[in-house]
Amino acid sequence: MPQDTVDLLVCATCRSASPANPLAMPDPDTRPGAQLVRALHDAAPEGVRIISVDCLSNCSRGCTIALRKSGAWTYVYGNLTPELHVTTILEGAQKYRDAENGLVPWRERPEHFRKNCIARIPPLEAPNV
Amino acid sequence: MPQDTVDLLVCATCRSASPANPLAMPDPDTRPGAQLVRALHDAAPEGVRIISVDCLSNCSRGCTIALRKSGAWTYVYGNLTPELHVTTILEGAQKYRDAENGLVPWRERPEHFRKNCIARIPPLEAPNV
Repeated sequence: MPQDTVDLLVCATCRSASPANPLAMPDPDTRPGAQLVRALHDAAPEGVRIISVDCLSNCSRGCTIALRKSGAWTYVYGNLTPELHVTTILEGAQKYRDAENGLVPWRERPEHFRKNCIARIPPLEAPNV
Repeated sequence: MPQDTVDLLVCATCRSASPANPLAMPDPDTRPGAQLVRALHDAAPEGVRIISVDCLSNCSRGCTIALRKSGAWTYVYGNLTPELHVTTILEGAQKYRDAENGLVPWRERPEHFRKNCIARIPPLEAPNV
């Protein structure tokens, strides 16, 4: 069971895909993305480093995270909210941390991850696997 | 003007976002993604390595490519077709190759790239920039 350190990148700028009031311009500190960063920081599992990022450029399907580690596929997930998905994200991050090449078997992925994968990038070491 | 080698990852499995016949199951070699791989291989600029990837997991907005290089942001772009976008992709790849950190100024990006960025991932070396 590999235990590489995982980067859990969290877009702090995300407003969420369907804000109640799309014209609202929330303060940067109260945006859903920033709330998600704080909630994940408070509960980060061993071997998972929470990193706040200014923009992961998935603005129409935020909130957004990405998981990466050395030698593994990088995954981007979207349509997340700080109210509903902190536990889901932590579960998915732990499974990713423990999976060889970051490849968690489909059925073992959290349902939200299965339905809201935005993109994935192959590892530098073996890009055409 | 940095000249790092760029990986231009191309999803060979993509069928395109809106196929004329969504029930059609084209042969793997005739899928739009595979056609895009071949077209880009034939025209790859200096310093840009075309890499065919089985799936970049952006299936609802294919065809899909990703650009990455050492020390730079990785970008994923979608809604591409082999008929319309080979020149656009090559132009965008060359600008990415020549840009520090992979950050091409907004106005200099091809219009399709501006409107169809799926996600971006920060460089390993400075993930919270």
